[in-house]
Amino acid sequence: MQSVILSCGDELTSGATLDTNSAWLSQHLADRGIEVLRHETVGDSEELIAESISRATGVAELLIITGGLGPTRDDLTRQALARAMGATLEEDPQSLQQIATWFTARDRVMTASNRMQALVPKGASAIENHCGTAPGLSAIVGRCQVYVLPGPPHEMIDMFTRSVCPHLATAGLIARRVIHTFGAGESHIGEVLGDLMARGRNPRVGTTASGGLVSVRILAHGGRTEVAQALADADEQEVRTRLGDLVFGGDDETMALVLGRQLQAARQSVAVAESCTGGMIGEMLTAIAGSSEYFLGGVVAYANQAKTELLGVSKELLAAHGAVSEPVAQAMAEGARTRFRSDWALSVTGIAGPGGGSADKPVGLVYIGLAGPDGYSMVHKSSFPGSRQQIRLRAALAAMNHLRLAMKKS
Amino acid sequence: MQSVILSCGDELTSGATLDTNSAWLSQHLADRGIEVLRHETVGDSEELIAESISRATGVAELLIITGGLGPTRDDLTRQALARAMGATLEEDPQSLQQIATWFTARDRVMTASNRMQALVPKGASAIENHCGTAPGLSAIVGRCQVYVLPGPPHEMIDMFTRSVCPHLATAGLIARRVIHTFGAGESHIGEVLGDLMARGRNPRVGTTASGGLVSVRILAHGGRTEVAQALADADEQEVRTRLGDLVFGGDDETMALVLGRQLQAARQSVAVAESCTGGMIGEMLTAIAGSSEYFLGGVVAYANQAKTELLGVSKELLAAHGAVSEPVAQAMAEGARTRFRSDWALSVTGIAGPGGGSADKPVGLVYIGLAGPDGYSMVHKSSFPGSRQQIRLRAALAAMNHLRLAMKKS
Repeated sequence: MQSVILSCGDELTSGATLDTNSAWLSQHLADRGIEVLRHETVGDSEELIAESISRATGVAELLIITGGLGPTRDDLTRQALARAMGATLEEDPQSLQQIATWFTARDRVMTASNRMQALVPKGASAIENHCGTAPGLSAIVGRCQVYVLPGPPHEMIDMFTRSVCPHLATAGLIARRVIHTFGAGESHIGEVLGDLMARGRNPRVGTTASGGLVSVRILAHGGRTEVAQALADADEQEVRTRLGDLVFGGDDETMALVLGRQLQAARQSVAVAESCTGGMIGEMLTAIAGSSEYFLGGVVAYANQAKTELLGVSKELLAAHGAVSEPVAQAMAEGARTRFRSDWALSVTGIAGPGGGSADKPVGLVYIGLAGPDGYSMVHKSSFPGSRQQIRLRAALAAMNHLRLAMKKS
Repeated sequence: MQSVILSCGDELTSGATLDTNSAWLSQHLADRGIEVLRHETVGDSEELIAESISRATGVAELLIITGGLGPTRDDLTRQALARAMGATLEEDPQSLQQIATWFTARDRVMTASNRMQALVPKGASAIENHCGTAPGLSAIVGRCQVYVLPGPPHEMIDMFTRSVCPHLATAGLIARRVIHTFGAGESHIGEVLGDLMARGRNPRVGTTASGGLVSVRILAHGGRTEVAQALADADEQEVRTRLGDLVFGGDDETMALVLGRQLQAARQSVAVAESCTGGMIGEMLTAIAGSSEYFLGGVVAYANQAKTELLGVSKELLAAHGAVSEPVAQAMAEGARTRFRSDWALSVTGIAGPGGGSADKPVGLVYIGLAGPDGYSMVHKSSFPGSRQQIRLRAALAAMNHLRLAMKKS
């Protein structure tokens, strides 16, 4: 089954509001084995919306429209659907009563404009709205099932879940997997997975670079749920084998979550000493609920004085090597481990730019220190590309990744 | 001038990634008086992308495409543009050299797949990418100017700003202002600005709640640039007057940037002591280039032991009042100010949830401490709604906002 998602509203085409409905709907359609051919967004124009409806119903078997059901004059999806159906609008008594009840229950007065919301194209039917005043619509146009849902995300989600989902085919013909990697570029991952990514192959395998990570997506089609799942499982296994230690997690797993689980399983704790990342590693680790079980705290040692007084990095070491150096990274990690009495400690010192670089120590140079049990001590030198924020993000992820790998080996 | 924005990628049609590029581009086209007819999103299919290009170039004078320029086999926008143009792909020597240089400068090896990125449809031209390996493309199809930009937002924004903007019509018939507020809900702001937000009024005034802030958008139309600017200026003045201290900045200004400027102007420094925010305030302050001039550092005191040993909060105080309390917030701020020898210090201690709440101290309860010159000491108690991450974000913003207001008064 193939579908199109259409969202309507000037606030979307003007960029004032980000369309989150289409991505949400896509995920939930995919879960039910329904392929999404395309998203489309048009402004508050009866003509443009009607044109898009006609085009979509010509190619897809399912069209989901969001937005343009409100009570104001710029809400025109109802009229556009009627135009695309070649039908007139008629007042639906049951919808009118539901809208009136909604206002009565809230001690508010129903305005004349709300009466417009009870209009339904002849041949279509209304869908009750349990979260607001705008009823949805359901219609068949050609060979395509069309649903119109309200624009506010919580109303859309409620109506989709209650009134659309039960009518969708539930054959789980698609299985999805996402595998997250850190430490190699998209082109390297692409070469290692080359044959798996060939066009027309099932499962379809693709890569996305985002937020400092490269993620591998696997989308398997099958005549039965078990077939699609088995195909996806086999590809996931193959991808994980080929990429080895580059893989740190899958689906909703973040680096901080994976590292946190490892620490929890080993009953070990961690502390951090951050310079150029300024608190980002601490922030990421504590974004995980329950992180207080293994995260003790950190020192953001931005000024040199803080490195000396709070982490015990000697002034002589700073003077001899500079704050961005291997010995200082090492002393910061060891200092944090001692001060917090943690099993492990991470440190980051580097040049995030855009200023402050030199020929010897260019922007992007980062030292990551790691101190652990039984005298474990290690410093990794890296050079990260990108803007100030990208360098900081990559340094934070790299630091957590080094600890993940060190714990795996120990 | 009318435009269409097309974004390409399975990660978008599958809902795995949210398309933020189209909204960003829409805003920036509107700034230049260019209307956006429609957004469209299609998956990684040469045929579907080519079809969308043909359809868009038939109705619009400007088509901006994002995504599908990467080095892997699922990146097909280059091929789709060639198909829509009826042209063959040829290797562009200059692009190839730029890609090779990009790898050399980073001590990395260029793979064969990156060579694909130098392919350009005959009749089109390449646009240099200053942030990554994928060159963009520029072509005329029928009567439509087409630009193809990379999918990663920072690469797209850089290329649009450098290489597309200068060629767009600059008739400034529209003037835009954005004013950021913190500390009141969207409905309160809406009531205060009620008459300015009436439909059909010029300028158009609207509000958006996002990232813990409420922002006011002003969009003025005028027959001449100066007319639009003057209308926008007058409304901006009126909005700022009505909202007073709720306003902290405008356009691209963040809370951390505004606070940083204030500290720099006063030649004063700040340090932080964070518990439930885990490093978020430090991360935000150090996201600003040059923040080392006023930000000395911080302690992420997640465990009680860290509050005692690194900030000097007494064990007795912790035992008597608990870590989430007014006296502990005060002792944390004063401890940080002493340890870092800063002019100001901020502290945050609270319950971010989802667990750990009680009847006395529910999830969302946050104490923010402030220590400053001449014995200044203050604690603010707040109760923030939302998820763990929303509570942490609001606490971090509130802490910086309290310092902003305290410095303004002092």
